[in-house]
Order: sequence, then structure tokens, then C-alpha cells
Amino acid sequence: MPFPDAAAAEAAFYAAFRELDITRMKTVWLDSTDASCIHPGAGLLQGTDAIMASWAAIFESSQVPQVKHRLIQASTDHDLAVHTVEENVSSGSGEHRARILATNVYARGDGGWRMLAHHASLPLVEPRKEPPEPTSLH
Amino acid sequence: MPFPDAAAAEAAFYAAFRELDITRMKTVWLDSTDASCIHPGAGLLQGTDAIMASWAAIFESSQVPQVKHRLIQASTDHDLAVHTVEENVSSGSGEHRARILATNVYARGDGGWRMLAHHASLPLVEPRKEPPEPTSLH
Repeated sequence: MPFPDAAAAEAAFYAAFRELDITRMKTVWLDSTDASCIHPGAGLLQGTDAIMASWAAIFESSQVPQVKHRLIQASTDHDLAVHTVEENVSSGSGEHRARILATNVYARGDGGWRMLAHHASLPLVEPRKEPPEPTSLH
Repeated sequence: MPFPDAAAAEAAFYAAFRELDITRMKTVWLDSTDASCIHPGAGLLQGTDAIMASWAAIFESSQVPQVKHRLIQASTDHDLAVHTVEENVSSGSGEHRARILATNVYARGDGGWRMLAHHASLPLVEPRKEPPEPTSLH
């Protein structure tokens, strides 16, 4: 069953990622040769079969990660929705952490929404953090 | 004036990039705080002012580059269009070359189309190339 809206498809996408659940991940994606996926630092994958094989490989080599996501901006049309999302992914041990930026595209078909494209990238140059406010002594 | 379709906006976007033409680049983008841009390896820029400042900085420090682009996949709805594009960018001297993957999002408003989002990333791991066919001696 497709999802009632793009937000529901996105929630299922990140739940599948968090739980390393390839069956659930498959329900999230549009079954189409037009589906596309760009993992951080990787090339373009096209078509659901290639995309699902990549997620299966990622899930097989991963300990259950911590995945938090924050929707930054959403644009929704009749049959297409685009979300800009910040992902915070930590390895099972918490040793490795990555802040990833993703553009997630959802399409409506068969009465519901599924993921059409996922483009994720790692900012190699992080924005400079402002120094913390000095603690007031008063 | 906005563009008659997403393809026209995209052509103007790459023409502006090729010509380091900041005035033309400004006509391509939606004037909105919702506009977003992720340059390769960089963080998220939001809002047309921040985005235009980034392009101005890129253009100031660049020699006229060679920019070729190839549309890989387009999804178009009533007011929103998403393009997956491969960019081949060479420095003026031709010394540096990059193959970049971009997700370009266009939105319709004021009777035409403009760029709403540009997410570009560098594949750090290139797909393995098949060895060239041996030249036949026959």
C-alpha cells in the first residue's frame, strides 16, 4: 500500500533505515526505472532493483544505527513533493557520526505516495560555528 | 521574466554558470526564503540572498569554465519539476575536471518557471569502468 502523503512515506523511509529493514524499505520506493538514488559520495543508481540492492548491501554491513532526521523545507504539488532534510546518522557504537543533507522526492501514484528519488551528500566543509556565549557572572 | 518551462530555466542556469554571469543567474532563481542550494561538499544555503552571494563568490574566483550538462531524468507536475542532471565541469585551463550529480528543482509562479533548489554532489567513488574492448587484429 502506498502512503497517504509524502510525510508518511518519509517517516517509513527513515524507520526502515533505522531498523535496517529491507522489506519495509522496499515498500517506501516507487517500483520504477525512473527511481533514482545517490548515496553520500556515490554515483547515481537508477531503477528500483539497483537501489534496493544498494540498501541491502548497506544494511548487511551495518550495526543498527541511530538515525535522526529533521525536515528543513517541503514543497508539495499535486503529484510531486520535494523535501530538504538534515539527517544525523550515528553508528551503533556511537563512534562515527555524520550529518548528511538529503533531497527527497516523492511521487503520487496508485492512490498514494512513494519515494521517487533520494539524493544525499556529506558537507565536507562544515559551516563555522559561532563561539558559545560567555556565561554571565552576574 | 520567468521561463516558459523548467527546461528553459535549466538552460539559463547552465548558461549563467558557463558565462560566470551573476545577473543572469539571478533571473534563474525564485526570489524566496524557501530557495535552497547545496554546492558539492558544502552545507545548505537557504534564501536567494545567501545563494546569490555564494554564486558571486564562485564566479569571482573562477576562470571561464567549460560546463556541459546532460538531463538524466525529469519528473514534471503542475507547479513543480525535478531534474536529475549530470554536470561535467572543466576549469578554464582544462587542468581540473569534475563530474557532478545534481538534483535541480523548479517551481512555477508568476506565470513561469524558476529554480527553487539545486543540490549538487561529487561522487567520490566513481563506478568502475569496463576495460576497453581489445582492438581486433582481423
